[in-house]
Amino acid sequence: MRILYHSAFCPFSRKIAFGLKEKKLDFEHQWETVGKPSSRLLSLNPWGELPVLVDQHLVCVNHYVSSEYLEDAYPNPVLMGEGNAYRIEVRRLVSWFDKIFYQDVFWKLFYEKILKCQLHHKAPDTRILKSGYALLQEHMEQVEQLTETHHFLAGKYFSWADITGAAHLSCIDYIGDIHWKLFPSAKEWYCKIKSRPAFRPFLNQILSGVEPALHYSQLDF
Amino acid sequence: MRILYHSAFCPFSRKIAFGLKEKKLDFEHQWETVGKPSSRLLSLNPWGELPVLVDQHLVCVNHYVSSEYLEDAYPNPVLMGEGNAYRIEVRRLVSWFDKIFYQDVFWKLFYEKILKCQLHHKAPDTRILKSGYALLQEHMEQVEQLTETHHFLAGKYFSWADITGAAHLSCIDYIGDIHWKLFPSAKEWYCKIKSRPAFRPFLNQILSGVEPALHYSQLDF
Repeated sequence: MRILYHSAFCPFSRKIAFGLKEKKLDFEHQWETVGKPSSRLLSLNPWGELPVLVDQHLVCVNHYVSSEYLEDAYPNPVLMGEGNAYRIEVRRLVSWFDKIFYQDVFWKLFYEKILKCQLHHKAPDTRILKSGYALLQEHMEQVEQLTETHHFLAGKYFSWADITGAAHLSCIDYIGDIHWKLFPSAKEWYCKIKSRPAFRPFLNQILSGVEPALHYSQLDF
Repeated sequence: MRILYHSAFCPFSRKIAFGLKEKKLDFEHQWETVGKPSSRLLSLNPWGELPVLVDQHLVCVNHYVSSEYLEDAYPNPVLMGEGNAYRIEVRRLVSWFDKIFYQDVFWKLFYEKILKCQLHHKAPDTRILKSGYALLQEHMEQVEQLTETHHFLAGKYFSWADITGAAHLSCIDYIGDIHWKLFPSAKEWYCKIKSRPAFRPFLNQILSGVEPALHYSQLDF
């Protein structure tokens, strides 16, 4: 039995759910609410971090442990890349999205606009939003550069870099903040990701009380 | 040619320097100042994060990329553990130190007491220090529990969990904040780490303007 404790609009949860599907590994969903961990989740990870992956008797307490475990335990298809140089580039991009993009964009836009209100009943701070929009623009330029020269983010092959990038970008795309017209190569890459069967379920997820951007679920947008 | 861009009292830098020495890989030191990245460092990693490891033509931009790369490229001695269960436990502990311990203890004690003054000429906030001391106590109880039943942090074998734990704890031990008498098993474990040839160099490092705790460099303390 394989269970993923996760939340639909947590990018780290999306990453592991997407990775599991790419590796064609079935799992049960245990839905959690960001910021309100269940007692079962806390018993598996006292810090209440999402996601937690349980695979038989093995417990992976966060996205880092989970993604590396999935690659160790289920090496086909290879998603961390072949060869040291490719693996370095995949992990560089994974940590860039998980750390820099997350704190600069998810936190300043998705948290500020959506979660801050839902969890703390507070209005967004316009200065933080302004900074978030500027950083999103800057970071999308990075994604554009990568996709201008590469078929996938790390190079020729689909990898955890694409999985992680799509997990983060799709949350921001749900609230309509990405101006895809300015980033044609990034858009082309994201079209390819959206058309992968493993990614489709995320396009049908709905966040209670928040309508998705009109193009969010469209494969060709 | 192998070069490590690092700083003596950055726990992430210590982790990679210690790991390199455990794997008996020679490297040149390029000393950096936390919070004041050199232009060379910024050209390798625009976010100025420490450490950066350059191995021939390969660039690892942070501790996560570096530790996984070292394990991929130089698998002997094995430091990530053998078997999925052990590797999951090693990575769980690595991420616990790098995320939870770092934000709860390094940030609230070492940054607050030392770096805040050195970098920003500001005095420590006593409320933050109080919270840091309480969390250090709580986290040391976790380390004590692990070392009561295990020879090393993740189990029978020395691993990246010990390397990462010692990297973080040694920075806090330098400023004398760990009351080892309260944690006899953790102390015994740390004695073993201190006596490893690869760890010795860290015990001779001095932070300008800050005297180490008297026992800091003693192997039997």
